[in-house]
Amino acid sequence: MPTLADLGEFEVIRRLTAARSLRGTGVIIGAGDDAAVLRPGAGRDLVVTADSFVEGRHYDARWMDAETAGRRLAIANLSDMAAMAAEPRWALHSCGARRDQSIEWLLAFERGLDRALGQHGAVLVGGNLTAVDGAAWSDLTLMGEVERGAAWTRSGARAGDRIAVTGWPGRAGAGFLLASRIGEAAREPRWRDVFHAWTTPASRVALARALAPLRAVTAAVDLSDGLAGDLAHLCAAGGVGAVLDAARWPEDQELAAAAEALGVPLETLRLGPSDDYELLLAIRPESFEACLDVARSLDVPLHAVGEIKPREAGVSWHGPTGTTPIVAGGFDHFGPGGRPIQE
Amino acid sequence: MPTLADLGEFEVIRRLTAARSLRGTGVIIGAGDDAAVLRPGAGRDLVVTADSFVEGRHYDARWMDAETAGRRLAIANLSDMAAMAAEPRWALHSCGARRDQSIEWLLAFERGLDRALGQHGAVLVGGNLTAVDGAAWSDLTLMGEVERGAAWTRSGARAGDRIAVTGWPGRAGAGFLLASRIGEAAREPRWRDVFHAWTTPASRVALARALAPLRAVTAAVDLSDGLAGDLAHLCAAGGVGAVLDAARWPEDQELAAAAEALGVPLETLRLGPSDDYELLLAIRPESFEACLDVARSLDVPLHAVGEIKPREAGVSWHGPTGTTPIVAGGFDHFGPGGRPIQE
Repeated sequence: MPTLADLGEFEVIRRLTAARSLRGTGVIIGAGDDAAVLRPGAGRDLVVTADSFVEGRHYDARWMDAETAGRRLAIANLSDMAAMAAEPRWALHSCGARRDQSIEWLLAFERGLDRALGQHGAVLVGGNLTAVDGAAWSDLTLMGEVERGAAWTRSGARAGDRIAVTGWPGRAGAGFLLASRIGEAAREPRWRDVFHAWTTPASRVALARALAPLRAVTAAVDLSDGLAGDLAHLCAAGGVGAVLDAARWPEDQELAAAAEALGVPLETLRLGPSDDYELLLAIRPESFEACLDVARSLDVPLHAVGEIKPREAGVSWHGPTGTTPIVAGGFDHFGPGGRPIQE
Repeated sequence: MPTLADLGEFEVIRRLTAARSLRGTGVIIGAGDDAAVLRPGAGRDLVVTADSFVEGRHYDARWMDAETAGRRLAIANLSDMAAMAAEPRWALHSCGARRDQSIEWLLAFERGLDRALGQHGAVLVGGNLTAVDGAAWSDLTLMGEVERGAAWTRSGARAGDRIAVTGWPGRAGAGFLLASRIGEAAREPRWRDVFHAWTTPASRVALARALAPLRAVTAAVDLSDGLAGDLAHLCAAGGVGAVLDAARWPEDQELAAAAEALGVPLETLRLGPSDDYELLLAIRPESFEACLDVARSLDVPLHAVGEIKPREAGVSWHGPTGTTPIVAGGFDHFGPGGRPIQE
């Protein structure tokens, strides 16, 4: 297996770009010139996001092979597209690679990126490659399009809106914690769903694109800090409060078992730091059933878990033992209070 | 001076984005949501590029303060926009920062980015911030626009076209070499132009935008690998050859003095690895004078240095002692032949 140093920069780039299929539309000039040239759709807005993964922090060879790590980075960016109801189109991958990395590793990482992007209609059109001495890193910029003025934002929620989540928030954090605490046992079939929620999360792009025409979603945020933290972002942006209702939360036996195995309350996993890449939506109450129908048709779990309240109500969690304020506890990369249990 | 760890991620991001002025047009939603929303101009193509700087490799506190380093990263990306004749619009800055870095350093780096981008009509609209243990790094993605179908590429040169360069290629590499070899003496006034060509290169965006309507440029590449390497790219892309003519090259006394001080032939500096961020252009011969007029009006040095030839002619350098083939010698980040004298 040749290393990147064996091959040299231009051969590495040649092999990376040779693996690309520009099956997407709108690419006038792809990799190989000073910049890529793309043709946006008429009358659409452009939606742009970037996310970075650092070796040993966001991915780890013990738990994710190169293709899985690349796929997860793509999902992180696709999740931002979903949160804006945007259609993914084009991506650039900038990579800081170690000289002793194998070309196979890098090609597999790029394949993971490319396949996950391709499944949602986006293609890699460029990027940058540089050598680093320490941990490798990858920065992915993803561009998408949305009908003009129709992007979802964090700020439109109004009192009375239903709060809904896709999937099973908390599972990704639980999968990460299990892997950290019990090691190889985290691969046992009983932890399959939480483990995969961490390593191979789903994308909610298709759901977002299907919901957008209903004009029922008033605010959206993706769950990348943890439910409490991201709900706090959405409430702050909209100038509203919220109450989550434990009684309405769908049963999640595997997450409950993980909470027990980890010795933490179930609510801590549900609300705390967790990179679920699920969607947190505020939905007009009269349109909620229509949204449920769309979700069912796509086989995406969508559950009402609470309600938007006036700002004065604050943000709280209503459980069997009463109502308690939610303290935002998302992940902070730098501290001081940041608990690095999950990114 | 508080460190990033003292402040925490969200406060760092708040301070970074507070420093931004969205004076550019077309930003519907800037930083603070899941993604930025931008409104491209009607009937224009999108041009996208990314470039990354690694601490200790692309910038070094001995020679560039934070604002200068940030400015230089912006110029690297702006140079790609110039090479496509694109108008810079929007940028995303992804940053891997050390926990012990000061907030002042990061704000100054971002100010350098922001000011250089702003001088060319572009604004920062988002990015990503993550913590790293080793060398810090920054990845900048820059988006621009160009009239539909009018982007310059590397591939359109035809035999008979003039080869022209902006500025004084080789100076940036000479500045870097002087700093490496003679240390503080590189700051002496006699090395002012080569030193600044390295630390604070010019942007050629204004020239490119002014030349574009003439439809005189048949191919373009920015000089970021070195003239020999980038000319080889342009010739390979266009299926042509080229001859550079030493007799037509403008006198550059400071570069000649640097060559003497460094003990290398002047041609080695002119042709070898050098991050000049100047433009190498192929120009229709009948339009060359008109291009010169535009360059003069903008006070940008533009010199004819050779001619595009048929592919069979190869790529060569015609000097006082005869004609010699040019061996492409751009910088290779990974080796094996890469000489890491300049990035």
